[in-house]
Amino acid sequence: MADTAGPILVLNGPNLNMLGTRQPEVYGADTLDDVVELCRKSAARFGREVEAFQSNHEGALIDRIHAARGVNSAIVINPGGLTHTSVALRDALVIPEVPIVEVHISNVHAREEFRHHSFVSPIATAVVAGMGIQGYAAAVEYCCRLSATSAHG
Amino acid sequence: MADTAGPILVLNGPNLNMLGTRQPEVYGADTLDDVVELCRKSAARFGREVEAFQSNHEGALIDRIHAARGVNSAIVINPGGLTHTSVALRDALVIPEVPIVEVHISNVHAREEFRHHSFVSPIATAVVAGMGIQGYAAAVEYCCRLSATSAHG
Amino acid sequence: MADTAGPILVLNGPNLNMLGTRQPEVYGADTLDDVVELCRKSAARFGREVEAFQSNHEGALIDRIHAARGVNSAIVINPGGLTHTSVALRDALVIPEVPIVEVHISNVHAREEFRHHSFVSPIATAVVAGMGIQGYAAAVEYCCRLSATSAHG
Amino acid sequence: MADTAGPILVLNGPNLNMLGTRQPEVYGADTLDDVVELCRKSAARFGREVEAFQSNHEGALIDRIHAARGVNSAIVINPGGLTHTSVALRDALVIPEVPIVEVHISNVHAREEFRHHSFVSPIATAVVAGMGIQGYAAAVEYCCRLSATSAHG
Amino acid sequence: MADTAGPILVLNGPNLNMLGTRQPEVYGADTLDDVVELCRKSAARFGREVEAFQSNHEGALIDRIHAARGVNSAIVINPGGLTHTSVALRDALVIPEVPIVEVHISNVHAREEFRHHSFVSPIATAVVAGMGIQGYAAAVEYCCRLSATSAHG
Amino acid sequence: MADTAGPILVLNGPNLNMLGTRQPEVYGADTLDDVVELCRKSAARFGREVEAFQSNHEGALIDRIHAARGVNSAIVINPGGLTHTSVALRDALVIPEVPIVEVHISNVHAREEFRHHSFVSPIATAVVAGMGIQGYAAAVEYCCRLSATSAHG
Amino acid sequence: MADTAGPILVLNGPNLNMLGTRQPEVYGADTLDDVVELCRKSAARFGREVEAFQSNHEGALIDRIHAARGVNSAIVINPGGLTHTSVALRDALVIPEVPIVEVHISNVHAREEFRHHSFVSPIATAVVAGMGIQGYAAAVEYCCRLSATSAHG
Amino acid sequence: MADTAGPILVLNGPNLNMLGTRQPEVYGADTLDDVVELCRKSAARFGREVEAFQSNHEGALIDRIHAARGVNSAIVINPGGLTHTSVALRDALVIPEVPIVEVHISNVHAREEFRHHSFVSPIATAVVAGMGIQGYAAAVEYCCRLSATSAHG
Amino acid sequence: MADTAGPILVLNGPNLNMLGTRQPEVYGADTLDDVVELCRKSAARFGREVEAFQSNHEGALIDRIHAARGVNSAIVINPGGLTHTSVALRDALVIPEVPIVEVHISNVHAREEFRHHSFVSPIATAVVAGMGIQGYAAAVEYCCRLSATSAHG
Amino acid sequence: MADTAGPILVLNGPNLNMLGTRQPEVYGADTLDDVVELCRKSAARFGREVEAFQSNHEGALIDRIHAARGVNSAIVINPGGLTHTSVALRDALVIPEVPIVEVHISNVHAREEFRHHSFVSPIATAVVAGMGIQGYAAAVEYCCRLSATSAHG
Amino acid sequence: MADTAGPILVLNGPNLNMLGTRQPEVYGADTLDDVVELCRKSAARFGREVEAFQSNHEGALIDRIHAARGVNSAIVINPGGLTHTSVALRDALVIPEVPIVEVHISNVHAREEFRHHSFVSPIATAVVAGMGIQGYAAAVEYCCRLSATSAHG
Amino acid sequence: MADTAGPILVLNGPNLNMLGTRQPEVYGADTLDDVVELCRKSAARFGREVEAFQSNHEGALIDRIHAARGVNSAIVINPGGLTHTSVALRDALVIPEVPIVEVHISNVHAREEFRHHSFVSPIATAVVAGMGIQGYAAAVEYCCRLSATSAHG
Repeated sequence: MADTAGPILVLNGPNLNMLGTRQPEVYGADTLDDVVELCRKSAARFGREVEAFQSNHEGALIDRIHAARGVNSAIVINPGGLTHTSVALRDALVIPEVPIVEVHISNVHAREEFRHHSFVSPIATAVVAGMGIQGYAAAVEYCCRLSATSAHG
Repeated sequence: MADTAGPILVLNGPNLNMLGTRQPEVYGADTLDDVVELCRKSAARFGREVEAFQSNHEGALIDRIHAARGVNSAIVINPGGLTHTSVALRDALVIPEVPIVEVHISNVHAREEFRHHSFVSPIATAVVAGMGIQGYAAAVEYCCRLSATSAHG
Repeated sequence: MADTAGPILVLNGPNLNMLGTRQPEVYGADTLDDVVELCRKSAARFGREVEAFQSNHEGALIDRIHAARGVNSAIVINPGGLTHTSVALRDALVIPEVPIVEVHISNVHAREEFRHHSFVSPIATAVVAGMGIQGYAAAVEYCCRLSATSAHG
Repeated sequence: MADTAGPILVLNGPNLNMLGTRQPEVYGADTLDDVVELCRKSAARFGREVEAFQSNHEGALIDRIHAARGVNSAIVINPGGLTHTSVALRDALVIPEVPIVEVHISNVHAREEFRHHSFVSPIATAVVAGMGIQGYAAAVEYCCRLSATSAHG
Repeated sequence: MADTAGPILVLNGPNLNMLGTRQPEVYGADTLDDVVELCRKSAARFGREVEAFQSNHEGALIDRIHAARGVNSAIVINPGGLTHTSVALRDALVIPEVPIVEVHISNVHAREEFRHHSFVSPIATAVVAGMGIQGYAAAVEYCCRLSATSAHG
Repeated sequence: MADTAGPILVLNGPNLNMLGTRQPEVYGADTLDDVVELCRKSAARFGREVEAFQSNHEGALIDRIHAARGVNSAIVINPGGLTHTSVALRDALVIPEVPIVEVHISNVHAREEFRHHSFVSPIATAVVAGMGIQGYAAAVEYCCRLSATSAHG
Repeated sequence: MADTAGPILVLNGPNLNMLGTRQPEVYGADTLDDVVELCRKSAARFGREVEAFQSNHEGALIDRIHAARGVNSAIVINPGGLTHTSVALRDALVIPEVPIVEVHISNVHAREEFRHHSFVSPIATAVVAGMGIQGYAAAVEYCCRLSATSAHG
Repeated sequence: MADTAGPILVLNGPNLNMLGTRQPEVYGADTLDDVVELCRKSAARFGREVEAFQSNHEGALIDRIHAARGVNSAIVINPGGLTHTSVALRDALVIPEVPIVEVHISNVHAREEFRHHSFVSPIATAVVAGMGIQGYAAAVEYCCRLSATSAHG
Repeated sequence: MADTAGPILVLNGPNLNMLGTRQPEVYGADTLDDVVELCRKSAARFGREVEAFQSNHEGALIDRIHAARGVNSAIVINPGGLTHTSVALRDALVIPEVPIVEVHISNVHAREEFRHHSFVSPIATAVVAGMGIQGYAAAVEYCCRLSATSAHG
Repeated sequence: MADTAGPILVLNGPNLNMLGTRQPEVYGADTLDDVVELCRKSAARFGREVEAFQSNHEGALIDRIHAARGVNSAIVINPGGLTHTSVALRDALVIPEVPIVEVHISNVHAREEFRHHSFVSPIATAVVAGMGIQGYAAAVEYCCRLSATSAHG
Repeated sequence: MADTAGPILVLNGPNLNMLGTRQPEVYGADTLDDVVELCRKSAARFGREVEAFQSNHEGALIDRIHAARGVNSAIVINPGGLTHTSVALRDALVIPEVPIVEVHISNVHAREEFRHHSFVSPIATAVVAGMGIQGYAAAVEYCCRLSATSAHG
Repeated sequence: MADTAGPILVLNGPNLNMLGTRQPEVYGADTLDDVVELCRKSAARFGREVEAFQSNHEGALIDRIHAARGVNSAIVINPGGLTHTSVALRDALVIPEVPIVEVHISNVHAREEFRHHSFVSPIATAVVAGMGIQGYAAAVEYCCRLSATSAHG
């Protein structure tokens, strides 16, 4: 039912708006804008577009996901801290019926125990963790290839 | 302290706004509007009124619950995914000091393990699961009878 | 395979024969006979009949459930303490291949930890808890509507 | 990086806006305004100021915490029900890089099991529970002393 | 409500009918009849009587416990294997509203892990384990003293 | 103490009386009578006899097991749902002091989590699961060989 | 190796020295002296003697238990709070190689979860809980009978 | 896809090469060669053949299982200690797409806790434990009957 | 029953006698004497007195707590390592029937898992952790205010 | 110490040699050779080389990893079933002191519970799951970029 | 800070004073004096001295450990039952800042489950279990070599 | 059955071949050859010999252990990562029926949680951890003394 040529939705959850402005000597100078730009370039190589949205509000993220139904062809999401706690977000993500790729900048499996469980992973198509912001590019690229396949399949 | 003749508040949490528009061949054509209408009719049979509110925002639901104090006679709530994760919602629900009936459209006990625990159930008066949207009607009817009893008791 | 117009079987498990005669100031004066009468009236409004059976013996309940196959259109069951411990009862309940509605007079989710798990819920169609004996009426009514739907479906 | 002379941020999470208007015979007549006033007086004794914010929305709290970076010298927070469930709030609280004091009006360790775990405590500097609203005063006072030490250290 | 001078009910659950006839070189020559006789003598010293019942059927034990209401002054029960598995038996035991003393011939705490938990203990007045059949005598004697106290209290 | 030439007792627990009459397209047309006949034939090849008993009542099964002491040379048992819940049945099975072979028609290890634990297995001599009704034949044959060995040993 | 006619050692652990002086309206007027006197009388009926020791110090209790080796014929012990936490006490209790009876005044199984596990029970001969101070008498009496049996055995 | 008339593969995992040479007074004089011979005879009665392989190397077992694809009609496997620890072996066993029968000489359910879980059982067709080397014969016979059925089915 | 004007008892458990002499560059130069002096000054501001006691012996601490009954108006306690392991200490602390404030110098919630559970917290009035020795002052001040309230209440 | 320009080692664990030949209608026609070719092309775009190794033997994989020390610049590994069970493999992977990228063809988080834990992830730099064989390409590309960065860093 | 040439402290916890006098046919005739003598000889071979202390009192052991600071060069400790329960002892052992070697005469890993966890091991330098009293000699020898290394290092 | 004068087998599991060549500044310059040499010297002092074997292959280790039966007098084993995962290795180690001493160079109890459990420890005679390569010497010496004792016993 989704439009396989529709723009790819790049969602970022709580605290990811602070990317780059916080501890640049550690996390690098890349900001959320840089992430979005990187995604755009990755999609452009496949002749595709990207829509980006960030919020610290679970409800706003859910609203945006609902709006993706029938419009966006795939969702690349870094749910931030909601990854580990939000069933509502998980339930929202199955509504658009499009591929979901979960991205984490750091390797969450090497951090605190409570970051090892994700409510999103079981309903995701793919999961990427620890590749820094490069993980977003890999996710967008994967979505582009998927759409291409299904468009011709 | 609650007004036992006040309108019954029917609350719906995250994702329930999508009811009916999603996979109608599976979930039927009933929308959230239909649910509210069903509740109104059930209450009307007892000469009672219903107020309805839905939000994907936990905070908005909590704000609405606070406003119920001294105004609404009972709360019928389907907390959606917040059922399993929100202590804040639970804490809000005890504030109006009115009967709480928790409703789930599907039988959550037959689904994933994490849906078997509810933070709301221990402070609810009653719980209904798996009766489809008919569960809302049963819940409203139960609240009407409760108020009638306490009004004469 | 079940006769969708057959009588609804109302089953009550261990200790429910003592309803009403124990601590009437707490549980009210309603007896198990009152429960059955309430069920009959609820069914009669839909032109349907009810058969009732209570036993403190797990084996007797299982025998009765076997006899329901091909005869009863639905089962409304309050398994009492067997809810939490009997796999044999659960296995029996899937044999008649009819809708099962599990009823608990009190809100079991607000009681001891061991009452939070039910072996019956995962194979039930719907679950009602905490509505007092009114829960039986809601369950019977739900079964009547279900049969009506499938009879015309 | 924080301004050690900046105002202390006093944050209150979900349901704390209802303080004092709910069951005054139990919780006393103190309102959230009284809490804020108490904090102001405690800070004033050290020649310091206080900024206060309350919300029932997790996202709004996170937004406010982000804004504290480089502005506020410390955060005193009563996260309410989010204490036990919000990884996003925890992740936000480490961003301003200032001391965090977690306050609970009641002794959460003497309440339900699920209130014994806090996502905030492991990243807090100090934790106070059970001292009623006096706990806020102790927290503010502690923050004032800390800043004084680091200002001269 | 119980008759504090009524006979003490001595209940034995599954497999205890085989006492004495099985491995007499290990368990001694004492049979269930000997247990009952021992109980009678213990009660007689206080001018009291004993009624005894054994069954391998959970339902039969529950039926007998129901019949104790208003008739027996106390229940001494060795629930056998049902100790660890029967919620229905536990629920039955609170109905007569009389003191319950749980007896185990062997020290169940020194046996398999699953024998360490008893559904009966939390609603019992007292528990005796490991004293052999002498435990029944101690239990009956304790019940006699309790009744004497309450009769004069 | 057991008569090693005595008949082999084939016990079937709750719901196994429904074998064959339920969903024959799935479970085949074999009934419990067919199972017993298969066991008889298997035993006859060793010049041995079989006694069969089925009940949905835990207590009736225990009574029958007690009666096996000194009479039957071995017990082949499919405890049905009691496998996972009955300590009383387990305690009964050690009384006759004969070999016990536990049989399950389906592979219980490939089903729900709660079917992976058996109270009977630790006190059984052997366990067979997933061989359909052929598992009974293997069990009976094994018992026949065992008796032959001990008779000459 | 123990002297089966030696005095019975009655040990009481932490806080039991406060018996009777604390909340007499709840626990009764019986003091630890009364407990010891009750034990003496129980033993005297069998022509036996009692030695009593109480300490709030785990080490002092262990020292006393060591001294029991070869001197005392049995130990009746109420380990108080050490019941649930002291492996050292458990290890000490096996050294004298005499029967151990564990006594608790209240029914610990009906109290907090952490009181349900005892390090002493698995190495005790018998356990009595919930019989008030009468439990000590039952324990002493049981030890007297045990010694009598082994003296003649 | 498997050849239902192909030879049955009998696999034995680590340590089973030591069968018979270790503690013959306990395990009997039967060696692994005897096991294989027993399997051959069982198969021969059905006009079928057996191929046998044993290794202490997980990788060698996996290699052998891969080679079974399209060649062997069924696999009878005693995975030894790998039963409880090897996901790789489990993953290999589903590749040939033939019936799998898991055999254990001893009753693993009566041994250490860690032997109660098998990674193989959930993907096996049937499981036999505790029948000594006779269990292999039962397994082979079961495979022969299965092939016969599917050959004609 | 406690004397609300009696001195406040400041208790310190195992290892706290080493405060200040151990790693002064890390923990500061404050010794246990400094802690006591700080408490005295805090109490003096309210016209109250303090009694201080430290021991590495659980039994000595319990003895001292017993002596507080009817004498001290409140207890401020840092139980050190006993916090996490001593039921006996917990049981002692309820005997004086006065407010208990639990103090920890470091934030125990940010340390090893086993330091997250306290046997004292559930029976304490308030808990302070991570405020360094300032936490003692906050605790004493809170006790002074409590007594003042109850003296006039 | 690693040669950042050395070839990237692509390791595949147990059962991955069967890729493509098994159920091509499900997994596609891609074989392990295709995976290696895809990796080579990805590396070639960065002017880098790839070395590939597959084994069903844990020991052979460990030997190969040891040989990577000082030779290979990074390791891309799909450990197959060893992911969840092999501490030895994990310990080997830290020896070469190069970046590790863990790849899974399917989304392991959406499969059985035991596949959710990886011994490799906590010591990996990045993890990719569910992207099919495209995940290998993303991993190789990530390694190439990493080396480029560190070569110039 | 410790004197690397200071005497090695050999500590023994509860019940170890009974060594040798209890069941000499099982534990051998070696007493605690023999253990100390063995330690002395081991140290003497390195020109070093030993100080020994045993107590059944946790507090006394802690006092002694405090006194080791700046005096003893290492601690060899068999904490007896306190191994598994004493956080206070663990906290004390880090104060002297010297190497700690934990010794157990028996192999605690082959005994009850609760003996598998040690609060001391994570802060110990080395652990020896199951070597009988020879384990003390190995521990002392190891400490001597360590001091020698650091003295010259 | 073992030859108590036979050579002691020193086994090393996965990754231990890399000892000394990896991070010499951390682990020292000692190689596996040095370990073996140290063992030889320790044995030589008792007139005994040593055989050494290392492999990264579980199966090769098991093969070697089988060959020890009747030849080697004891086994000193550092199982590396297999310690925590291999039931097959554990089962192999009981076959030679000789003393087993488990050695770990580092203190595994102070490392990750998963390293705290060993499948080998419960069947080992003794366990040494954290003594560096000196632990091998202590283990060999212990084996030599054991053989001496049993040779003369």
